[in-house]
Amino acid sequence: MTRNNESLISDRARLLGPKLPTFYEEPVHIVKGEGVWLWDADGRKYLDCYNNVPHVGHCNPRVVEAIHRQASTLNTHTRYLHDGILDYIERLTGTMDASLNTAVLTCTGSEANDIALRMAEAVTGKRGIVATDATYHGNTALVSQLSRSNIPSAGFGLDRFFRFVPAPDSYRNTDPDGSNFADAVTTKIEELKASGIGFAALVVCPYFLNEGFPNHRDGWLKPVAETVRKEGGILICDEVQSGFGRTGTHFWAHQKMGVVPDVLTLGKPMANGHPVGGVVTNAETMKVFRSGFRYFNTFGGNPVSCAAAMAVLEEMDDKKLMANANRVGEYARGRLEAIRQKYDCIGDVRGSGLIFGAELVLDRESRKPASAFTDRLVNAMRHRGIILSRLGRGKNTLKIRPPMPFTVHNADLLFDTLDEVLAETPLIQ
Amino acid sequence: MTRNNESLISDRARLLGPKLPTFYEEPVHIVKGEGVWLWDADGRKYLDCYNNVPHVGHCNPRVVEAIHRQASTLNTHTRYLHDGILDYIERLTGTMDASLNTAVLTCTGSEANDIALRMAEAVTGKRGIVATDATYHGNTALVSQLSRSNIPSAGFGLDRFFRFVPAPDSYRNTDPDGSNFADAVTTKIEELKASGIGFAALVVCPYFLNEGFPNHRDGWLKPVAETVRKEGGILICDEVQSGFGRTGTHFWAHQKMGVVPDVLTLGKPMANGHPVGGVVTNAETMKVFRSGFRYFNTFGGNPVSCAAAMAVLEEMDDKKLMANANRVGEYARGRLEAIRQKYDCIGDVRGSGLIFGAELVLDRESRKPASAFTDRLVNAMRHRGIILSRLGRGKNTLKIRPPMPFTVHNADLLFDTLDEVLAETPLIQ
Repeated sequence: MTRNNESLISDRARLLGPKLPTFYEEPVHIVKGEGVWLWDADGRKYLDCYNNVPHVGHCNPRVVEAIHRQASTLNTHTRYLHDGILDYIERLTGTMDASLNTAVLTCTGSEANDIALRMAEAVTGKRGIVATDATYHGNTALVSQLSRSNIPSAGFGLDRFFRFVPAPDSYRNTDPDGSNFADAVTTKIEELKASGIGFAALVVCPYFLNEGFPNHRDGWLKPVAETVRKEGGILICDEVQSGFGRTGTHFWAHQKMGVVPDVLTLGKPMANGHPVGGVVTNAETMKVFRSGFRYFNTFGGNPVSCAAAMAVLEEMDDKKLMANANRVGEYARGRLEAIRQKYDCIGDVRGSGLIFGAELVLDRESRKPASAFTDRLVNAMRHRGIILSRLGRGKNTLKIRPPMPFTVHNADLLFDTLDEVLAETPLIQ
Repeated sequence: MTRNNESLISDRARLLGPKLPTFYEEPVHIVKGEGVWLWDADGRKYLDCYNNVPHVGHCNPRVVEAIHRQASTLNTHTRYLHDGILDYIERLTGTMDASLNTAVLTCTGSEANDIALRMAEAVTGKRGIVATDATYHGNTALVSQLSRSNIPSAGFGLDRFFRFVPAPDSYRNTDPDGSNFADAVTTKIEELKASGIGFAALVVCPYFLNEGFPNHRDGWLKPVAETVRKEGGILICDEVQSGFGRTGTHFWAHQKMGVVPDVLTLGKPMANGHPVGGVVTNAETMKVFRSGFRYFNTFGGNPVSCAAAMAVLEEMDDKKLMANANRVGEYARGRLEAIRQKYDCIGDVRGSGLIFGAELVLDRESRKPASAFTDRLVNAMRHRGIILSRLGRGKNTLKIRPPMPFTVHNADLLFDTLDEVLAETPLIQ
């Protein structure tokens, strides 16, 4: 049936329960998508500058066709033999360091991270996990412990295994080579060791997407990776957001940050919205994990999911979407920097490729986050037909992370609108 | 690329890691499916008597068309408003007791059970979980603890919250009204209370599918449900396998067993292989859960998943597949009973609707499981073009659980072949 917004909101509360988050003060009722565009039920068109799941564009014809073709032919599980999963993992791991050569396919990034933490326990015999205090890695009982913004009241006491370091903040703290971050992690590792829990892994998004993607020079994770290995733990890179060419310069953000993770987790954009996630690791870690578990995932790695995921890689190659991300991202940061010259509230411009944004502050001296202002800005942009969001510890960083076919022309529309909205929106916190 | 079986097997070991299970001594390379039929790479046709995920038939045109149509229109997440998820949950919960009126959609049954256990903790403030010793409820760190057949060596110490009762066995133990089962659960609840952990929930498949679907009269779960509530816990019914009309007489097996669960979990057949799972509960439990967690699942409840799941419900109604399951299931058990008269190795015929099978024993007196024989039988059936499997504590129960459009004609082919294979296969353990 077709509901109006009022009925949609009340039926959501009734059928999905209270407190289910929506975006915006006035939630959007999206009914159609194509490329970088979305349409609401009133026929209004929005430029999507936020959604990274439709990586190669909303309703990408190649992906839709791959799903349709394979769903019409066969959809079953990995207890039968099939070429699809093998072809996909061969091609996927071909983009990585030679040591990352074996994978488990799941349906979500949460499932992937849930496996990654168990791999860490299996390999090290320890359970202590370190992460940043402004991150998110998923929703299972185990991995939801990694979100300090969402401390679970029911979590089977798993919180005792987790320790948090302050999220890197390149705008306020100087840490040019990442050694301060490594020192902070060392402190938490020592705490874990002293407590008797021991140290198993550091889990990070190598581009710190949820933390507000601080500006770090290439290779910035090297010191902390060294620390982690020296202390007997493993490095888990969660590239659910940062991977698949998003940063424009490298296919994987861990490559940009100069490290090879022991375990790499994938999700969101992997199959353009078809539910696919995965864990890639080295043969030795996989062997230890598979000796401890008879892990099987009914839907994971099914032929349709693999066809959808393969179509994403093919589309990226064919359309040279990583190069596009690099080129359009540079142009976008240039325009954003020009806007920064005009408005004092823009404290810092950041990003790489098609993850970019700006931190909004009450003034450039105190650098105090303009959180409420950023919220108003995001809502005002929505009313002007631009979909974006905000994130970071103070929720004051514009999070701009569009589908990869985003163009210079799209960037112009985004920043022309932002310029207008900034001119109209008073900076009152 | 197209690999031969040898290359498929060696590439699996290389790319997916060791110990990834396949079915059969000689794994099957399936390339095509339609209705109740599968084809291998050599063009050989198999009658699928095993796979419950393609609930309304392999490559069901209505489901494929629904996926294609919605994937071409819009695929996004539940932070925007959309009718699809609301229409689906309205229709889904319409098949249930009025108290089961709110849902969370996930991508897998594992994710659903992971939520269910946290709901139990949120509602009761306790963490002790009781299950049977021959069950399976999924693969996350938390729910993999429920599988005694797969004791995880790495599981963050979560095993301390779980207690196991012997799986019901209607063939060897008398428990006509389920009160012995209730007593066994009471003992484990008392253990949990004495240990200081406390009691949160009993988790069962109401038709005990993994335990070998013992013959229980309707209403058999009533005593244990009463016990669970009296002891302050909640009843979680995992209907990943038993639901969606599988038993022929009721849409949900918990209805057949005379109880209303506090939490119901769903998965496998829900969207015919498209990765969808879900948790259905009452408004109060949902409220308590959502107060404790900001649970969000990126892919869960997306428009394509909801369209696929809705198409399954529509197809079931249109084709009257539950009535078909009832009719064909009765016919099948009749034929199986006739075969039992002929072969001493068949100890017990069981099932309801399109879950049926027989327990194979070395002799009818000792009732000792003919495990190795059952394995040979399953492999011999595969070579005759019949796909089925075995399960239960002794892995000696034929597990026959075909797609729901299975016909009397299909059942004849299955049992004619079984008859031939039994005549040829020597009963040597």
